[in-house]
Amino acid sequence: MTGLASPTQMNSTDQAVPPSIVNAIRDVVGAANVRTGEDAGAIDLGSNGADCGAGIVVAPLSTAEVAAVVRICRQNEIPIVPQGGKTGLVGGSVSRPGEIVLSMTRMNRIERLDPVERVAVVGAGVTLAALQEAAREHRLEPGIDLAARGSATIGGMVSTNAGGVMAFRNGVMRHRLLGLEAVLADGSVYSDLTRVVKNSAGYDLKHLFIGAEGTLGVVTRAVVKLDPLPRASATALFGLPSVEAALRTIRLALESDAGHLRAAEAMWNSYFGLAAAAHEWSEPSVPLDQPLFLLLSLGGAREEALREDFERSFLEVMERCPEATGIVAASRRQEDDLWRLREDTSVLYRAHPHAPSFDVSVPLSEIAVYLERILPGLAAIEPGLAPYVFGHLADGNLHIILNRKGPLGLDMAEAVEGVLYQQLRQIGGSFSAEHGVGSKRIHSLLATADPTKLAVMERVKRVLDDQSVMNPDKVLPCDAWFVRSSMPSHSGSERRLPFKNVSDLTNE
Amino acid sequence: MTGLASPTQMNSTDQAVPPSIVNAIRDVVGAANVRTGEDAGAIDLGSNGADCGAGIVVAPLSTAEVAAVVRICRQNEIPIVPQGGKTGLVGGSVSRPGEIVLSMTRMNRIERLDPVERVAVVGAGVTLAALQEAAREHRLEPGIDLAARGSATIGGMVSTNAGGVMAFRNGVMRHRLLGLEAVLADGSVYSDLTRVVKNSAGYDLKHLFIGAEGTLGVVTRAVVKLDPLPRASATALFGLPSVEAALRTIRLALESDAGHLRAAEAMWNSYFGLAAAAHEWSEPSVPLDQPLFLLLSLGGAREEALREDFERSFLEVMERCPEATGIVAASRRQEDDLWRLREDTSVLYRAHPHAPSFDVSVPLSEIAVYLERILPGLAAIEPGLAPYVFGHLADGNLHIILNRKGPLGLDMAEAVEGVLYQQLRQIGGSFSAEHGVGSKRIHSLLATADPTKLAVMERVKRVLDDQSVMNPDKVLPCDAWFVRSSMPSHSGSERRLPFKNVSDLTNE
Repeated sequence: MTGLASPTQMNSTDQAVPPSIVNAIRDVVGAANVRTGEDAGAIDLGSNGADCGAGIVVAPLSTAEVAAVVRICRQNEIPIVPQGGKTGLVGGSVSRPGEIVLSMTRMNRIERLDPVERVAVVGAGVTLAALQEAAREHRLEPGIDLAARGSATIGGMVSTNAGGVMAFRNGVMRHRLLGLEAVLADGSVYSDLTRVVKNSAGYDLKHLFIGAEGTLGVVTRAVVKLDPLPRASATALFGLPSVEAALRTIRLALESDAGHLRAAEAMWNSYFGLAAAAHEWSEPSVPLDQPLFLLLSLGGAREEALREDFERSFLEVMERCPEATGIVAASRRQEDDLWRLREDTSVLYRAHPHAPSFDVSVPLSEIAVYLERILPGLAAIEPGLAPYVFGHLADGNLHIILNRKGPLGLDMAEAVEGVLYQQLRQIGGSFSAEHGVGSKRIHSLLATADPTKLAVMERVKRVLDDQSVMNPDKVLPCDAWFVRSSMPSHSGSERRLPFKNVSDLTNE
Repeated sequence: MTGLASPTQMNSTDQAVPPSIVNAIRDVVGAANVRTGEDAGAIDLGSNGADCGAGIVVAPLSTAEVAAVVRICRQNEIPIVPQGGKTGLVGGSVSRPGEIVLSMTRMNRIERLDPVERVAVVGAGVTLAALQEAAREHRLEPGIDLAARGSATIGGMVSTNAGGVMAFRNGVMRHRLLGLEAVLADGSVYSDLTRVVKNSAGYDLKHLFIGAEGTLGVVTRAVVKLDPLPRASATALFGLPSVEAALRTIRLALESDAGHLRAAEAMWNSYFGLAAAAHEWSEPSVPLDQPLFLLLSLGGAREEALREDFERSFLEVMERCPEATGIVAASRRQEDDLWRLREDTSVLYRAHPHAPSFDVSVPLSEIAVYLERILPGLAAIEPGLAPYVFGHLADGNLHIILNRKGPLGLDMAEAVEGVLYQQLRQIGGSFSAEHGVGSKRIHSLLATADPTKLAVMERVKRVLDDQSVMNPDKVLPCDAWFVRSSMPSHSGSERRLPFKNVSDLTNE
């Protein structure tokens, strides 16, 4: 369970959707594709029990069906909660009685995959893994990758502007998208299935829907840019004394002669030790006592050349940091073992059930200072309170998991966020790097965002979804503008919501 | 001169800005930084005579000054026309009496250039060339490049979402931007100086201002991502029989063993012949009779390896296309000579003064069909009417210049656009790839855009700039919403503006 207030607490009505409306929706998508009651709960539990609080899951097959369902819902003031692969971590698709869940999983067709254009047109319900596999047949890849690839859908990744391990190089989901189709709150279809990167024909409105977590419309189709898949790859693990040494190592890898850097994942000592122990991993050449471990992947034409590149880099690193350690994976098996240490973060949640998790972006030059500040800051809240830290070092995205069973109590959660989020925006970072805001992080957004940004967000939400039919109480709280007739002009602190418990699950 | 209706025709008032307001603005930015009358015209003629129709140019030095000027203008209903390096091609910064030009050229400070973060924070008035030069000192580059680099400003490039030669790989300006600061129509400052790629803390509103051509706010600062600059580069020119052969050659180059593809510029026969003659260029190994010429640049660690890669690719191309020809530049001088053929498009405008120019995006798999269709289409309008075609082949961006002195008459312009823009959006392309809409292409946008898109664009414009103070009659016509109180629900054709003459200048 999450630390969210119970759905019924937040909802003005806990009435289920009336049967007449359920029947109207059944007429659109077919009776078999509307599940209610026990049936809905059974198919849709996902990783988060609150995901199906609505008790009704509607699974349309086409954009036209989505539009028809949206029109019915709008007419009857039934909120819609779009749902993809249910791998989100911030309660973006939790639902409440009186709402409907719109599951996009049946819209899972790869409609076009053109090796000449290096472009894919896909339904919102296609998983990342399915797209990766289809692209691989043409020696292509979507240029974005994350641990939840088997479940995460393209529609969900668009709606949350997913990040992952290649973002430092290829950008986030927003940067991989050439076109997008979405159903708006009034049932009209925003259709921009552009298959080229250059399009300056008016405002590029698809960027409103990307990362809006379904609050401005339902993403139904996406056009994804593909890149050539390198013929070979190589993976190395370095043990390093400092963030500075790790950033220098990354720069060397970025300038690889033999290929290009594809991943640069950092694991700080306490996380790495836990992961190594859980997987019974050990390597004589990489003792566990280094402050920081850096997992690097190169892609290129020849594996041997990539490995040699790593060895050259290692020698260069050693010149400045004689204490550096390292290993270059000699086989696919070794490579997989190294990646498991980074990707299988469930080891943390076994050690600390529902451990509170955070996902921040910190400018690279500020990371060392940031970590030096938060360690004593957390310990000051409670003796022994400490973070496991790992993440996408080349883009400054740190995942921070506390060594505590979650969820935290209100006061402690507030104190922890006070430490972790302090001044993050002001130094050019973000309190939410790639997980979004959902329902769990609204209070943090309101507490930390630029008031001008919040005001414009509200205006945009209102102008696209005046009745707040689209995933209400996600990203922004809806109550705010129902009670006001004029444009809000608020300061962040004024509008702060009651602080909620904080907890997260896995899959960073 | 442009084919625009004269400014005074379009403006309800041709009164100059009242002296009391000019004085209030002088108090903000300093008397020396407000130029009027002859003085304004003299400093600001640019490539487009209409750029300074306003007769008053205000040059602020800081965001605070911009905000103060905006507040004065809003209070007095004085429209603001932001202006960067005046290299735009669609009349995005032309101005009329009664408006003020806000020249961003004094905000030309590179405030931060961090080699660890690989990020630059710059004022809107910094030129691309200045940023490239500063980045080069750290072996970095902004990852975007275009022929107008010496004049084009970052603010202008953000506002027009500039493209250029590296977009197929690195994306357009939108994809290079980590953060942005803009002054909104009410004088408030939207401040998002994020220096990381991952930020999902609420709607990413900077994307509204990118490509909005100053109609939603004035871009004052930008955070630009930098990439390592390759240590070596190599350039080759191939003569090829078809688009298909060129796309195959590009795919080979994308999979280069020794480096990465940095540019893939196509020049069709008629353009190439003209350019070669104008520059007295000739190479025995590249006769001028090929249908298509492809200019490729690779970047990597070693020049010799890159050249060898080109030679290998050439052999592979020859296997399928024995008629292919090619040369690999053996010196920097040869490289520059090849690039001049592509970049110095002024040869066209010397041959055909004010030749009508177009800038379309076509999905790669549709380019051959598109060209086969438009050639007879143009000839059917007038015997001998033919296009010079060149552009960024790897991203499908074609520049099309007609072999006619411009501007065209109304009927002919309409007929030409009918041929060039027909079904472009429907096949996944765009009638405006990288030049934007400005004042010249509004009629084309209204004629071809998805009505839902136009409706949302108008809502967004209205909600951010209800008085239409920000660059009015650019991108969208302003008259539309002053006369209506409720949300427009229009079809594209209904709202079509009277057709204007069409002409362009240089710098594609």
